[in-house]
Amino acid sequence: MLVLHHLENSRSQRIAWALEALGVEYAIETYQRTPDKEAPATLKRVHPLGHAPILQDGELVLAESGAILEYLAEAYDEKQVLKPAAGDKEAIVNYRYWLHFAEGSFMSLLIIMMLFKNIPKQPMPFFVKPVAKGISSKVMEKFVDPRLKDMLSYIEDHLNQQHWFAGAQVSAADIQMSFPVLALSQSMDLAQYPAIERWLGQVRKEPAYQRAAAKVGEFKPF
Amino acid sequence: MLVLHHLENSRSQRIAWALEALGVEYAIETYQRTPDKEAPATLKRVHPLGHAPILQDGELVLAESGAILEYLAEAYDEKQVLKPAAGDKEAIVNYRYWLHFAEGSFMSLLIIMMLFKNIPKQPMPFFVKPVAKGISSKVMEKFVDPRLKDMLSYIEDHLNQQHWFAGAQVSAADIQMSFPVLALSQSMDLAQYPAIERWLGQVRKEPAYQRAAAKVGEFKPF
Repeated sequence: MLVLHHLENSRSQRIAWALEALGVEYAIETYQRTPDKEAPATLKRVHPLGHAPILQDGELVLAESGAILEYLAEAYDEKQVLKPAAGDKEAIVNYRYWLHFAEGSFMSLLIIMMLFKNIPKQPMPFFVKPVAKGISSKVMEKFVDPRLKDMLSYIEDHLNQQHWFAGAQVSAADIQMSFPVLALSQSMDLAQYPAIERWLGQVRKEPAYQRAAAKVGEFKPF
Repeated sequence: MLVLHHLENSRSQRIAWALEALGVEYAIETYQRTPDKEAPATLKRVHPLGHAPILQDGELVLAESGAILEYLAEAYDEKQVLKPAAGDKEAIVNYRYWLHFAEGSFMSLLIIMMLFKNIPKQPMPFFVKPVAKGISSKVMEKFVDPRLKDMLSYIEDHLNQQHWFAGAQVSAADIQMSFPVLALSQSMDLAQYPAIERWLGQVRKEPAYQRAAAKVGEFKPF
């Protein structure tokens, strides 16, 4: 029996989408965030790092979105709904790239952005606030903004050439990319990236995505 | 012909190790960091994001360490030196997990650590320094340190049970994990993690790692 350990408003929404796309049976264990918006300590009983998503398949306890998606593609994907056919080399190269890029490059930049944006929002004496703002905006300007612009332009170019991230068919690469793009779309207007917006519209129309969203919710800013 | 676009002191050292392990012919194009320690703009002529590593295989331009390693495992690894046999399910689950964890979780935390540690080192008026230090140490204490401790304990536990990350044989999971562990070992004493130190010793004794280090150097703090 597959059990998805789902943390509300987290990357685990991806795995619900993948499981719905596969059409397999699974149970959902839901975890609420702490008042600090962190994962609760109870998740550490399932996996030592206590980060969502975690997928249990019998004895196996799987973590890391990309690794879980690849596991599902190998173990449950007879109809090839998650991964392009091995013979389609271009699709496989794209599939793998975006599967790794989503967390390795994109999501890590978004976390840095969130941490630095939050600095001036912390409680602090009024005379410290301008310094905190200065530190935050310097890192945004020098580190985050140029990288984010490059990444969004690159994604936009790619989606101008491809309907989905790995080509003509939706795949786990789209599932993996959906979380950072959805998260970013809540804090930033993506109107200047029409191909990304088109793709996000496609995502929201996918029946398996909709079934997952009905069960575990869509990502909301918090 | 394979061409490794190598940025000095960067993740591209991993790919040199993988190529040496495979025993394939390849050329190295070396790029120097800018005075700001960034990748030079010339790397963007090879790949739009301009981040190392980049591997060219004829017309194909590949990026993201994890995706490159998986590509090499598929296209050049007849002797199975990079990836465990498909039948060894436990090894494959571990292989995939660490391949994704290395960048998706571990490396992204190390970049956050580096950014926040650097804040108080920036040039600033003396009266601002205590505020910068306070902001930096608060994030280190609340965000970075607990996560880093969890991750290192988890890695230590794993390496107490397994000789290499995916089991008895060295694999691309070790190659992928080598960069963050090497980088961390330069700024932190890992003596309280003897299994990690043992593994790092094994890495440095691997003939393919040594051949790669002779060609492109080992990671040095900068």
